[in-house]
Amino acid sequence: MEPPFTKQLRSLPASIPFVGPETIEREENIRFQARLGANESAFGISPNAEQAIKDGATATYYGDPTNFNLRTELAGVHGVSINQILVGGGIDGLFSLIAQAFIEPGTPVTTSRGSYPTFNYFTTLCGAALGLVPYRDFCPDLNALAKEAQRSKSRFVYLANPDNPTGIFQIRNRLENFISKLPEDCLLILDEAYIDFSPPPEILPVGKEGPRVIRMRTFSKAHGMAGMRIGYLIADQEVVAGLNKIRNQFQVSRLAQIAALASLKDSAFIDSVVAAVAAGREDYHAIGEELGIKTLPSASNFVAFDLGSPKRVSAVLEALKRKGIFVRTGPPPNNRLLRVTIGAPRERTLFAAVFKEILASEHLGASK
Amino acid sequence: MEPPFTKQLRSLPASIPFVGPETIEREENIRFQARLGANESAFGISPNAEQAIKDGATATYYGDPTNFNLRTELAGVHGVSINQILVGGGIDGLFSLIAQAFIEPGTPVTTSRGSYPTFNYFTTLCGAALGLVPYRDFCPDLNALAKEAQRSKSRFVYLANPDNPTGIFQIRNRLENFISKLPEDCLLILDEAYIDFSPPPEILPVGKEGPRVIRMRTFSKAHGMAGMRIGYLIADQEVVAGLNKIRNQFQVSRLAQIAALASLKDSAFIDSVVAAVAAGREDYHAIGEELGIKTLPSASNFVAFDLGSPKRVSAVLEALKRKGIFVRTGPPPNNRLLRVTIGAPRERTLFAAVFKEILASEHLGASK
Repeated sequence: MEPPFTKQLRSLPASIPFVGPETIEREENIRFQARLGANESAFGISPNAEQAIKDGATATYYGDPTNFNLRTELAGVHGVSINQILVGGGIDGLFSLIAQAFIEPGTPVTTSRGSYPTFNYFTTLCGAALGLVPYRDFCPDLNALAKEAQRSKSRFVYLANPDNPTGIFQIRNRLENFISKLPEDCLLILDEAYIDFSPPPEILPVGKEGPRVIRMRTFSKAHGMAGMRIGYLIADQEVVAGLNKIRNQFQVSRLAQIAALASLKDSAFIDSVVAAVAAGREDYHAIGEELGIKTLPSASNFVAFDLGSPKRVSAVLEALKRKGIFVRTGPPPNNRLLRVTIGAPRERTLFAAVFKEILASEHLGASK
Repeated sequence: MEPPFTKQLRSLPASIPFVGPETIEREENIRFQARLGANESAFGISPNAEQAIKDGATATYYGDPTNFNLRTELAGVHGVSINQILVGGGIDGLFSLIAQAFIEPGTPVTTSRGSYPTFNYFTTLCGAALGLVPYRDFCPDLNALAKEAQRSKSRFVYLANPDNPTGIFQIRNRLENFISKLPEDCLLILDEAYIDFSPPPEILPVGKEGPRVIRMRTFSKAHGMAGMRIGYLIADQEVVAGLNKIRNQFQVSRLAQIAALASLKDSAFIDSVVAAVAAGREDYHAIGEELGIKTLPSASNFVAFDLGSPKRVSAVLEALKRKGIFVRTGPPPNNRLLRVTIGAPRERTLFAAVFKEILASEHLGASK
């Protein structure tokens, strides 16, 4: 007897959005020396957060289901009402929540072909009809996204800013213009996972986005807490109230709440991480220049190297893996990019040496 | 403009399944001295788990999305295939997942009126038509549940065993008989959050439940990790394969994976917790006997005191709260029960003293 799954689930393929480095290590008997594939932080977590975990955490009690202390601090940081903030299990968990809240079978949704796949994963599960807009010069094409949203009467437009996997950042004027062109009842899902690495004067200020924008933030990147599963969204109070009807109240771990709160108060630490990441980006751009490989401008904690073709990316990824370096590419057509996380100096040095060696040994005619 | 929520979400009330103790403390300016309301463990986590967190954990890396090491250990413990196990963010997170996988608007589902509310919360969100079967003598009525499932052609029947909020346990013969009476394509959602506290010879052995049963387990209770958000289900391989299509791959934190694995290997610790909880249950039964309050038999880490009426429960809960003791009741009609977690000896002593004092001061005629 086949299990009585919904029609929607039965229509979905078995897909794995990301193969984790642990799986590759296990299946291919590799031990990674540099973990540069998942845009995790190479710069750890705030010492204050570590101390807070040691001092105050107990694994035994459920976390506060209202995330009150953290939301209070976030409201202060962003100058918004506590009722505009919802804390969840990372941005992926928040995608799942908003998909359930807004998407019905056939609901039109607009996104860029080749952007972060997890948004598509969760909205497709709920039956979204995805309109996929091509990138333009490795940049999400805001005009085309707005046009497609108008044409299809989309309920959502998804934009990662900075973009993933390109790292490209849209400045506030462009975003404001884009938002003004969206249909009246269309929400912009603005995935700002990497925004801490972007130039502050050019970030669309919180409060200036209007009621149609859901901004998604995470502690996984600059705050170094990918393994703790905590993120939040900032949105109109009515949006948050609706999401509160259906969210998993106890999703966020107690340790994550405590650590995130402490990290948020340690802006000196975050500043140091951001500076270290900026230095690492320069390293990568210099490597690209030295090797004659174009790198894309990045306002995030990774740099995309344009290898020109998916075939070349596959070969280089395989060679890097054999040398113990974990890196990823993007979804098609961004699978001609090698997306490399800003590692610690040791990891960057290792990557640079191995990358050079691989490119030097390429049969250029065959693989370029 | 109202946000463009789904019809289903708009039909739902704003509801909070549980008010956390932190909210009560904050809103009523109380400081709880005993936390006996959420069936958290008073006996901490395995020292091996603590050590494993200190030694091996990093908050910075994502956890293994396949949960491979933990699933391997669980498969060994239960004597099933690794492909029959799915790890998620606690049983609540797994409820959300199975609701999305199996429930469409109007899908009939059968459960007991007054049982653990979170199952209803997530299935209702997906549009389930709940058939609510009355308890019989504070015990889920297996015959009536099977009959209702037959009548409504239910896709799910939900049973918590041991039950929550009563603590009552169904022995394996009764369960086997019940399963045999369910419709062919009806799944039994068997919530075994408290099963570690039940008598092993009477637990339905894993592997004997048949392909129509999804067994749900957690590290939140005997393993003492409620604050870490990790649980798992054991089911037919086809069920797990379908759920894998749609689950949040990175839901479980890296720390939780490591801690759960270490705890699973420390059976001596779990045995000691189970023994301590059994002693605590005897304490509570003795308190009930001394005070002339009926207690329900319990195979879990809490004991339900039958105060006879919801009104009396409300008054006692309020008085306990004023004395710094956090306790909960059940959903109607089980809101005549005072459900008290087995606390540490200090907490039990405090509860006993305060409970006696409250009952002694009751205006018996008015509130009984």
